[in-house]
Amino acid sequence: MLKVKDILAGNQRSGARMIRLIEDNDPNVFELLKELYSHACHAFIIGITGSPGVGKSTLIDALISEFRKLDLTVAVIAVDPTSPFSGGAILGDRLRMQRHATDKGVFIRSMASRGQKGGLSRATKDAAIILDAMGYEIIIIETVGAGQADFDITSLAHSTGIVTIPGTGDGIQAVKAGILETGDVFIVNKSDKPDADASVYELQMMISMRKLLETDWTPRVLKTIAQNGTGVKELANAFLFHFDFMKKNSLMDQKRKEQELLYFKTILKDLTLEKLLLFMETSEEYREVLKKIQSCAIDPLSAAELVFNKVCAFEKKLIKDEI
Amino acid sequence: MLKVKDILAGNQRSGARMIRLIEDNDPNVFELLKELYSHACHAFIIGITGSPGVGKSTLIDALISEFRKLDLTVAVIAVDPTSPFSGGAILGDRLRMQRHATDKGVFIRSMASRGQKGGLSRATKDAAIILDAMGYEIIIIETVGAGQADFDITSLAHSTGIVTIPGTGDGIQAVKAGILETGDVFIVNKSDKPDADASVYELQMMISMRKLLETDWTPRVLKTIAQNGTGVKELANAFLFHFDFMKKNSLMDQKRKEQELLYFKTILKDLTLEKLLLFMETSEEYREVLKKIQSCAIDPLSAAELVFNKVCAFEKKLIKDEI
Repeated sequence: MLKVKDILAGNQRSGARMIRLIEDNDPNVFELLKELYSHACHAFIIGITGSPGVGKSTLIDALISEFRKLDLTVAVIAVDPTSPFSGGAILGDRLRMQRHATDKGVFIRSMASRGQKGGLSRATKDAAIILDAMGYEIIIIETVGAGQADFDITSLAHSTGIVTIPGTGDGIQAVKAGILETGDVFIVNKSDKPDADASVYELQMMISMRKLLETDWTPRVLKTIAQNGTGVKELANAFLFHFDFMKKNSLMDQKRKEQELLYFKTILKDLTLEKLLLFMETSEEYREVLKKIQSCAIDPLSAAELVFNKVCAFEKKLIKDEI
Repeated sequence: MLKVKDILAGNQRSGARMIRLIEDNDPNVFELLKELYSHACHAFIIGITGSPGVGKSTLIDALISEFRKLDLTVAVIAVDPTSPFSGGAILGDRLRMQRHATDKGVFIRSMASRGQKGGLSRATKDAAIILDAMGYEIIIIETVGAGQADFDITSLAHSTGIVTIPGTGDGIQAVKAGILETGDVFIVNKSDKPDADASVYELQMMISMRKLLETDWTPRVLKTIAQNGTGVKELANAFLFHFDFMKKNSLMDQKRKEQELLYFKTILKDLTLEKLLLFMETSEEYREVLKKIQSCAIDPLSAAELVFNKVCAFEKKLIKDEI
């Protein structure tokens, strides 16, 4: 049996089990999360985002080492479906991470998209609550940036690092994708490749075009070579510096408030949809409608209207019975 | 006033206006779509997907020309936030497309993600219904592939083309992202770069590992240089051949049925959430709860439960009044 006190004590097996329950949409998760929530407001959550192939996983691997040197405990959630953490064992990247496997201060988990009720974003937030309650000081969320329409890393992370590589025009792509506005730290990885300085310059130019208030954080641009660790210490420090900056300027409180409100709205939506699902699963009429759609006897729009009205009637009936 | 008959007549201004209404969540869209639906089952829908920077837009531009040579009318929906169609005017890519601007047989629109009720996926499906009803024979949907958790191109397109470039290890990334299973045609674009043949070989190897039934389509791998049109004619033919193959093997009917069922479920979900929103907007109690969350007087999970119970009570009250 999964116990809240084991998670609060930082037990990795219990933590891993609870994250699996989230992935499996287990109905017990909700009550557990309610109990954990008040213990989950200490971690510094870093988002690492960028296109596939820019070296996010290698960079995170190196970042873990840097944070560990500072005696900070680190948990990683890989949301990126292309991440080696999430099953890309094909290339053996996973082996590389094994060097942290015996370190009790490091905990790495991936979140697979298995059609979680509230989507991957909610599941990741749920997982972050667990890792925070377990006592990890740094939580890193790895995600593919551009184009993840329904996964907004800025709604989860306190600080967002955007990883690019030289010569791909990623800077321009970032502007197009609107992720330039969301980055707190920009990383030109594989900076031993040609054009690294041009990429740095390009990003700096673009950042200088951002309208910043005096109290705003000015995004940093850093060069790294994750493969051999070059620049990763500076990167770790940039994140920690951003964390301090936010705390000093009350930006952290503000960000937390916004994020919690968003979380609340997601949960409310999910609860409502669950109820709908319950109706659908138990109703013979619903199955009839499905058949009609498949035989083209009704269009999907009219069918949805029909079922929706039935849900209301179903509920009215329940209430009348009650009365 | 927007008229259904104008859209059915293929009027581009009316079509553009209705797509804008979708983006703006206009409440009138639902009834209009119901009227258009029965006229929207003729188009062949092609999805073009791939990481930013692989040259999707240039490729689509060249594809349009090829389909036009065959006298097929073409509509494009750019869902990719990094697409030049969707506002990447920065680089002037948009200018390149202008060559189709005076061609009445071509219609290009982008779908911006503005938090549409049903998400971008539903909005794109809605737009495809309009373009189909307008009479376009080919509809191309451009999207960023990997990692768009909530945008599954295979739920919209009849044929999916996955664009990669040589030397990026995109093939491996595709396997990791699980998009290899969804591709019907694989395109190695910018194939004048080194390693193009290696990329083709790699993709072919991976496809050969897919377990295919005898009635299944065997995915094609093609080399293109979109910039000068090399290989694009063959690409257009590959898509058309796939279309024929599906029709001959009753795969088209099956795919349509699955996609319409999914569409229906999305709409049903959206209708339910609208109702929830209505409650929230009109309720004083809801605003109280929001304040409590922001002042940390209640956790978001318990708060959601509370409001959900209130929604039910609210509805019971309405029904009692009715009775």
